[in-house]
Amino acid sequence: MNTPAQLVAVLGPSGPRVLRQDEAIAYADDLGLTRGDGCFDATLVFAADAATGTPEGARRVLHLDRHLARLARSAAGLTIDSPPAHEWSALVEEALAHPQAPAGESMLKLVLTRGREERPGGVFGYLTVTPLPASTIAARTEGIDVATMSRGMASDAFADAPWLLGGIKTIAYAVNMAANREAVRRGATDALFVSSDGYALEGPTSALITRTGAELTTTPTGATGVLDSITIETLFAAAQADGFTVTHRLMRSQEVPHAEGAWLASSVRGVAPIRRLDGRELPLDQVLTARLGRLAGFPG
Amino acid sequence: MNTPAQLVAVLGPSGPRVLRQDEAIAYADDLGLTRGDGCFDATLVFAADAATGTPEGARRVLHLDRHLARLARSAAGLTIDSPPAHEWSALVEEALAHPQAPAGESMLKLVLTRGREERPGGVFGYLTVTPLPASTIAARTEGIDVATMSRGMASDAFADAPWLLGGIKTIAYAVNMAANREAVRRGATDALFVSSDGYALEGPTSALITRTGAELTTTPTGATGVLDSITIETLFAAAQADGFTVTHRLMRSQEVPHAEGAWLASSVRGVAPIRRLDGRELPLDQVLTARLGRLAGFPG
Repeated sequence: MNTPAQLVAVLGPSGPRVLRQDEAIAYADDLGLTRGDGCFDATLVFAADAATGTPEGARRVLHLDRHLARLARSAAGLTIDSPPAHEWSALVEEALAHPQAPAGESMLKLVLTRGREERPGGVFGYLTVTPLPASTIAARTEGIDVATMSRGMASDAFADAPWLLGGIKTIAYAVNMAANREAVRRGATDALFVSSDGYALEGPTSALITRTGAELTTTPTGATGVLDSITIETLFAAAQADGFTVTHRLMRSQEVPHAEGAWLASSVRGVAPIRRLDGRELPLDQVLTARLGRLAGFPG
Repeated sequence: MNTPAQLVAVLGPSGPRVLRQDEAIAYADDLGLTRGDGCFDATLVFAADAATGTPEGARRVLHLDRHLARLARSAAGLTIDSPPAHEWSALVEEALAHPQAPAGESMLKLVLTRGREERPGGVFGYLTVTPLPASTIAARTEGIDVATMSRGMASDAFADAPWLLGGIKTIAYAVNMAANREAVRRGATDALFVSSDGYALEGPTSALITRTGAELTTTPTGATGVLDSITIETLFAAAQADGFTVTHRLMRSQEVPHAEGAWLASSVRGVAPIRRLDGRELPLDQVLTARLGRLAGFPG
């Protein structure tokens, strides 16, 4: 194997188990596999030798507590009983201390499904630690090329309709993945969803930020179905302390290219500047982008 | 084990493999599991001792060819390379001839995912054969209790937006499952999705039929995102020959309770009469229901 391997660890009835070799872990009737009936969350694991000074064996995870809290909210929205946060934390700790854990900057993904349909045994939870591709890290400085496309729903479609699972990070992301493929088909790297009434929403795995002067704006959650972004929550709190005004409001998709800057933010890739939107160049400000990334807690 | 076991068979590089024991088959990085990035299809397997005279070891599958064709269309819509139909057929044949295959009326489900993200190896395909619960069989005669709820999208939301995966039977069914839970929460058994502009669409795993006089009506596919129903295709062809008029048109959800009968049709449960819609009683016609079921190819 030339590629650095992904580490897998499973929440089992007898405690955390880090897989020693590549093996199958999910059954044919797991509702996560057959129905996308589950949720996930993902965040960054800092490199062992990073400028943060994190030593090997004590790897730092970006906002693990907040991601565990959001995973629990997603599970509750699906009426899946999540294992308690301390079990997930123990699993993360055991995985990151494992000698086979990737040493570089990595993605920690926590996956929770409703479990097996045909056999009792409760929910199924596991994590993966996967080295970040160089392209993901490069996007933080080089920027991304974004294509807008319809999400098929109005900006208030999720109000009073909890079965539509707005704001819940389910593993049923087939449309999100198809939107990314459509973006690539159009010569871009990322998709940005637009509501049927013309508002910019979010990316398939990211949230939108625009800047006008000292004001940073993002899309509201709630009726829009947009996921609450931990990156933006962190960034906005720090940015306010740093002199920015921060706003949650609906933006028409035509507004975005007229902003003085726009970014797609996510917990793994960080705050990636949009350098092109539907083929139109956007202003890039490397100093400001680096500042926003640091405010959100990402490695410079 | 008191419950009859599900049989599992996997499409492998070295040919079909029927599992001898309960074992995990999917890896942590399978995109079907992590992203719902795959498709499925499902149909009925007649009982070995059914009135159809199907002997043990030569079990009959309802419209296998059409389901394989639809699975291939779903895969193409996701740009997943499906194994050819003859490989799926061989897998089905081997599974149904297996001594551990359930003998009673069963559901055959074929699942196809994009495969693993971190390791090469191509797509991942498997099937399950699962005994039908008695409640599923009973629904064909006793009827179902249906609750309508928003699908959050207009009836033309899928036009010119192939990334929304309209008409594709993906495994990303978390919203479909949540809609079923919402129906149960309201005291019903089944959900019926309604578009944001007020049209009845389909159930989470079924298609809608209404009757007025000698006319049978169902929802159009295409821009509605509604799945093309093999049960309705079969039923409508046979019903026309039997003297019915058949129509595909959008029906306002308020129209449905005023029809002389309504059914939710699916390839496993068959043509189940709606006996109650949002708490309102609908006319039940057992003779007609049995006739429609037979026309669609289901055991009487």
